[in-house]
Amino acid sequence: MTAIATGHVLSREWRLVHYLNGQPNDTDVELVTVEVDEPDPGFVRVENEVMSVEPYMRGRMSSRSTYADPYVLGEAMRAPAIGRVTASSSVEIPVGATVLHDFGWREHALVPETACTVVHGQASVSALHLGLLGIPGMTAWVGVRRIAQLKSGDVVFVSSAAGAVGSTVVQIAKALGCTVIGSAGSKDKVALVRELGADAAFDYHDGSVGTLLRGALAELGAPGLDAYFDNVGGDHLEAAIRVLNDHARVALCGMISIYSAESPQPGPSNLIKLVWRRARMEGFLLRDHRDARPEFEADMREWLHVGAVRAVETAVPGGIEGAWAGFLGMLDGTGTGKTIVPL
Amino acid sequence: MTAIATGHVLSREWRLVHYLNGQPNDTDVELVTVEVDEPDPGFVRVENEVMSVEPYMRGRMSSRSTYADPYVLGEAMRAPAIGRVTASSSVEIPVGATVLHDFGWREHALVPETACTVVHGQASVSALHLGLLGIPGMTAWVGVRRIAQLKSGDVVFVSSAAGAVGSTVVQIAKALGCTVIGSAGSKDKVALVRELGADAAFDYHDGSVGTLLRGALAELGAPGLDAYFDNVGGDHLEAAIRVLNDHARVALCGMISIYSAESPQPGPSNLIKLVWRRARMEGFLLRDHRDARPEFEADMREWLHVGAVRAVETAVPGGIEGAWAGFLGMLDGTGTGKTIVPL
Repeated sequence: MTAIATGHVLSREWRLVHYLNGQPNDTDVELVTVEVDEPDPGFVRVENEVMSVEPYMRGRMSSRSTYADPYVLGEAMRAPAIGRVTASSSVEIPVGATVLHDFGWREHALVPETACTVVHGQASVSALHLGLLGIPGMTAWVGVRRIAQLKSGDVVFVSSAAGAVGSTVVQIAKALGCTVIGSAGSKDKVALVRELGADAAFDYHDGSVGTLLRGALAELGAPGLDAYFDNVGGDHLEAAIRVLNDHARVALCGMISIYSAESPQPGPSNLIKLVWRRARMEGFLLRDHRDARPEFEADMREWLHVGAVRAVETAVPGGIEGAWAGFLGMLDGTGTGKTIVPL
Repeated sequence: MTAIATGHVLSREWRLVHYLNGQPNDTDVELVTVEVDEPDPGFVRVENEVMSVEPYMRGRMSSRSTYADPYVLGEAMRAPAIGRVTASSSVEIPVGATVLHDFGWREHALVPETACTVVHGQASVSALHLGLLGIPGMTAWVGVRRIAQLKSGDVVFVSSAAGAVGSTVVQIAKALGCTVIGSAGSKDKVALVRELGADAAFDYHDGSVGTLLRGALAELGAPGLDAYFDNVGGDHLEAAIRVLNDHARVALCGMISIYSAESPQPGPSNLIKLVWRRARMEGFLLRDHRDARPEFEADMREWLHVGAVRAVETAVPGGIEGAWAGFLGMLDGTGTGKTIVPL
């Protein structure tokens, strides 16, 4: 675990043992120690300081391709991480630089210089790059700006509103002048969602989502939703469709409710309402919106500057050894905001 | 039924007796004879020559508002019709003119001049105005052009492809250079769909829609669908979602499979594919697209001129008395293309 100037270092890495169907558990992965060599020309060796826990990792643990290729068995699982360059064969990136990369879940990674983004500041500060300025932050931004096309005065519902994406959507929507309703899975999370600016929020364990959502709309004196940012699918999606306004937009970001389902879950029974309300439902992935990065960063830096948005993070304890438990916890809805693993 | 120069005429009209839940039947309506007076200033009296049978009428027979208001009990049911002006108190529209209006299901109607569109030619020719140039034709056009945004080379699936809207979608999509797959409910209808230009077509009674659709794609050597024009919902929608290409568009036009369902039907279990495929599903109603009329008419007249599209009609026998049976038949999928009632 100590970086040395020459020769190899020992590094632990998380590997998938076999492909999954249903709920992941501890027998699905292993923590393996490997030797990591000096970097070849054009590469750097990075000692990771913080790793990202991403919902999309669940998809890559299935053998069937979803939108990303399955993980390769016997290799470290890929995910974003930030670390310090401890050996460099790059003319661009010196030893000591802090870099963001996606070679993921390991202590030391050999990374092509072209796959590194140099970031400035401490790892604790730069963890911002995994959250607000990273995948979940930009996912929230794309969903809000390009898919749901939120504008001032819109009434928007956000599910999983205390999660990494949801908590950012709540803040962006408020920054844009929307009325925001959030749902989350505990009293503490609901409190956080309100603290982030939501005008109404509920714990979905407190009743049927449909009833709770209608209650929130009534509390706000709003007839229905102009938009729904869906992170969960299932009953949340059906409840939202039921109360859409004319010309409403539903941004489909992911459906955590079904990621680990062993059999297909029935979909919403009320899709005909999309016709009656002339509503649009659209799925999106970040990969199609790389061109948005400058606009996204400009928005975020401005909102950070004026205090309209802030990072919400849950740090998993236990270093590299705690990462898998952190992943299972994120799927179960433990923690709030962006889940990270400090090493 | 004979127009007279002065005084009232006797007219039969179809009325809804009570609001419906589930399958419509003969006890839901009545054919009533009324006296129709001379027109007030600004009105004309029209002797209808052909009436339209519209799927949206089913929605208006329910007490709960869908996207159109429920029919008023004790009044003639509204729907488009074309007829000859037999008495006029309008300075714009003379006796003898042929007009299109939506005062519907009756032999003689008093119609405000502002609600009349003068059409030229015989009623048999002008029935075109109820089909290709009417609601179903423009619905097809809007769905293809504005919602599914079909372009040359796209592979598109059309359900209810022998119906009023579907048969027009097939022809428009071919005119635009698409590869078209159609589904319909009988061998004769499938033959019609092929005759209208579809590259592949199947009878959905011949197996699961999913298997039949995959078979059609394989036959055409196409990996998946760029667009789906949905007229039925249910298993057709789920099957189409399963084989969408990246960035596919689903135009939701109506869901005839659920119009008369007494309880909600489960929706597609695979909506997560809209995320993976970054696909868009959008409902639409003609009322939002009135501005498209000139562009629609220009397209249609051009396609009619070059023989790229043709009217497909089923005339209900029995005159005014046969209209209700014609409506039930349309819901059951009897007939092809636009269902009309010649009086």
